[in-house]
Amino acid sequence: MTDAVTLIQAKRDGRRLADDDIRWLFGAYADNQVADEQMSALLMAIYFQGLDSRELRTWTAAMIDSGDRLDLSELGKPTVDKHSTGGVGDKVSLILAPLVAACGAAVPQLSGRGLGHTGGTLDKLEAIPGFRSSLTPRETIDILKAAGCVIAAAGPGLAPADRRLYALRDVTGTVESIPLIASSIMSKKIAEGTDALVLDVKVGTGAFMKSYDRAKELAETMVALGAEHNVTTAALLTSMDTPLGRAVGNGVEVEESVAALQGNGPDDLMQVTIALAEQMLALAGLEKDPREAIASGAAYAAYQRMIRAQGGDPDAPLPQARHTKELSASQDGWLTRLDALQVGVAAWRLGAGRERKEDPVSAAAGIICLAKPGDRVAKGQPVLELRTDDAARFDAAMAALDGAMTIGEHQPQAPASLVIEHVVG
Amino acid sequence: MTDAVTLIQAKRDGRRLADDDIRWLFGAYADNQVADEQMSALLMAIYFQGLDSRELRTWTAAMIDSGDRLDLSELGKPTVDKHSTGGVGDKVSLILAPLVAACGAAVPQLSGRGLGHTGGTLDKLEAIPGFRSSLTPRETIDILKAAGCVIAAAGPGLAPADRRLYALRDVTGTVESIPLIASSIMSKKIAEGTDALVLDVKVGTGAFMKSYDRAKELAETMVALGAEHNVTTAALLTSMDTPLGRAVGNGVEVEESVAALQGNGPDDLMQVTIALAEQMLALAGLEKDPREAIASGAAYAAYQRMIRAQGGDPDAPLPQARHTKELSASQDGWLTRLDALQVGVAAWRLGAGRERKEDPVSAAAGIICLAKPGDRVAKGQPVLELRTDDAARFDAAMAALDGAMTIGEHQPQAPASLVIEHVVG
Repeated sequence: MTDAVTLIQAKRDGRRLADDDIRWLFGAYADNQVADEQMSALLMAIYFQGLDSRELRTWTAAMIDSGDRLDLSELGKPTVDKHSTGGVGDKVSLILAPLVAACGAAVPQLSGRGLGHTGGTLDKLEAIPGFRSSLTPRETIDILKAAGCVIAAAGPGLAPADRRLYALRDVTGTVESIPLIASSIMSKKIAEGTDALVLDVKVGTGAFMKSYDRAKELAETMVALGAEHNVTTAALLTSMDTPLGRAVGNGVEVEESVAALQGNGPDDLMQVTIALAEQMLALAGLEKDPREAIASGAAYAAYQRMIRAQGGDPDAPLPQARHTKELSASQDGWLTRLDALQVGVAAWRLGAGRERKEDPVSAAAGIICLAKPGDRVAKGQPVLELRTDDAARFDAAMAALDGAMTIGEHQPQAPASLVIEHVVG
Repeated sequence: MTDAVTLIQAKRDGRRLADDDIRWLFGAYADNQVADEQMSALLMAIYFQGLDSRELRTWTAAMIDSGDRLDLSELGKPTVDKHSTGGVGDKVSLILAPLVAACGAAVPQLSGRGLGHTGGTLDKLEAIPGFRSSLTPRETIDILKAAGCVIAAAGPGLAPADRRLYALRDVTGTVESIPLIASSIMSKKIAEGTDALVLDVKVGTGAFMKSYDRAKELAETMVALGAEHNVTTAALLTSMDTPLGRAVGNGVEVEESVAALQGNGPDDLMQVTIALAEQMLALAGLEKDPREAIASGAAYAAYQRMIRAQGGDPDAPLPQARHTKELSASQDGWLTRLDALQVGVAAWRLGAGRERKEDPVSAAAGIICLAKPGDRVAKGQPVLELRTDDAARFDAAMAALDGAMTIGEHQPQAPASLVIEHVVG
């Protein structure tokens, strides 16, 4: 038997929390015997003192046990999911889920919504007329059976403690803690019932993790947590210094995803997507080449099945923005840098993202990168096309883009692979 | 213009908060635009990252400005107060206020209540039948005029932000932070309107500050804060390894205080009391010898005036406990150690202290130290007398006293002065 103040003081002073104390904490928090102001103080103490692997395992287990765990055994095939820590132009999930499903796995992708400058997968798909992302557990499984993949909102029954903690962390400056990030991501993914999981841990200016070291630590932490909970987990560290692909927004990213599924994706996007697909198939024990599933049309067919199963019309035209504005190159030269964070913030300000979780997002707003780093540009040539339904937003978006591009006199080296490293258990 | 999350992150990351941001914070907290869970996260960040002297000055000023500041100028004499960080058997305020008043200063002592093992001055005085500690500002000043001293509860108008922050710190493991302690103490004392202030910073097992270094840092921080707010401030570091005097409790400490005012106080208690009185008189610019005010009866007369002015009867018998129990020496020898913390906890468990601020305390419960370190004891000789109205409490009190005394074969060295150091601005 313990109490909240004793636990907070123990962690504050660098001591380890006993398993029983962690389980008591989550029970008492659910019962409102531990107050939000106590939990936030503990979260800040964890920010400074961390959680060791044993504490983190128990902490994550307590979050999973706060709700239900989906049972996907009736699907009768290997299940594998992917989670990205979030990047600018990161529409990989939209391509990857049907692609891996077309190769024979079931992909149960339960996602959250975007906050800040990184977009949310559900926001993107909801640009499609009719698409429903709120599904019951039964619907989720039925769509997985019918389409091989599903991309839906994690329901209130999955890791509800994480939902509450995440909202608290968001307003108390306690988001940026590796054990808290790892337990938040992994509790939802483990509760979702997948057999295997591949993590796309983004590194760079447009990523949550700005440094390689932090990203590596997060990846290793999550891979270990997955294994401890019997979810075969691997991670790829991938570069996020410039937007992935050319489209940043909601509807515009759906369009680029469809193009990719039809074999017309930009190189950088396909490099990351194929690497993740190969890793997912390897964990699922399936010896398939994902490129073939694109070339054959099987991946796009799976996408159409999924969208239709979730109420959407994959052939319907997507909302188009009423206003556009271009940002042009200020001189002749080579585009050597196009900052992911600044483009992400600008797209957000155009209406593609939300500031508060209750805000709506615009399906049509976003940015098209007409040139990417490595491209030759001429003075006055449009580099970015800004799109919005609300022309009053252009000023704030343009302000965010101040200094976002660098044009040099020399052709930059062709970038190394965007996939920096594989982290496997 | 800022927001709570930005401030929390800044402090978390070791940056300094701007003066405007600190003032914004207290305003927004008062308006409930900043929530308790945000403030507690910030307090924990301050626990780890501290506040520098500029931040602390502004933080303290914002707490003072959250309420009223008493104006004592109409008294027409120097005002000087004393604050103790709290110790076991620390009844010094009861003696010191009338003693310094008898020497010609006005002593406006506004106090809090005890929590945990250190007793509260108000709890002690309220053992006196009729005594009222809740006074209006007008009553406070009138009693100061009539009696020269007053010991009362700090009203709700003085530093209300401190009241709210203290309650929050108490439940969120953020009490033990030197800038937060210093600002809490000093905001109340500065708001009280005193010209000068002497701090008794206790060091030792029975004190809040266990180490000399921490106590010194706290003392220096408070002395500087006082000067910055035009309150001439000095501090004494005094030893708190064993109870001060022989009585620990409420009514029993009143009895010992009266004895001290009548010239019959134990040496250790008088040593600390006289040192503090001399420092207070020095700051007040009064060249008086406090010993003479005791010898002449003037100090005791001031005490009687104060008690009567606050509704109490200084001649009324104090409540006596219904049950007593003795703890005896286990062998012949010299008492070399009597642990202040353990005696304090035992007195608390007998009913002298409270666990939660809404709990009542017992006027009669407490402990009498029949021997003190340095005394010769014989096997079976009573060393402690435990007093309570609830005999069921003896077991818990005796458990707290396990190992509290050490009896050695050799006479211990006479202790050095209990006054370890003077800290002046």
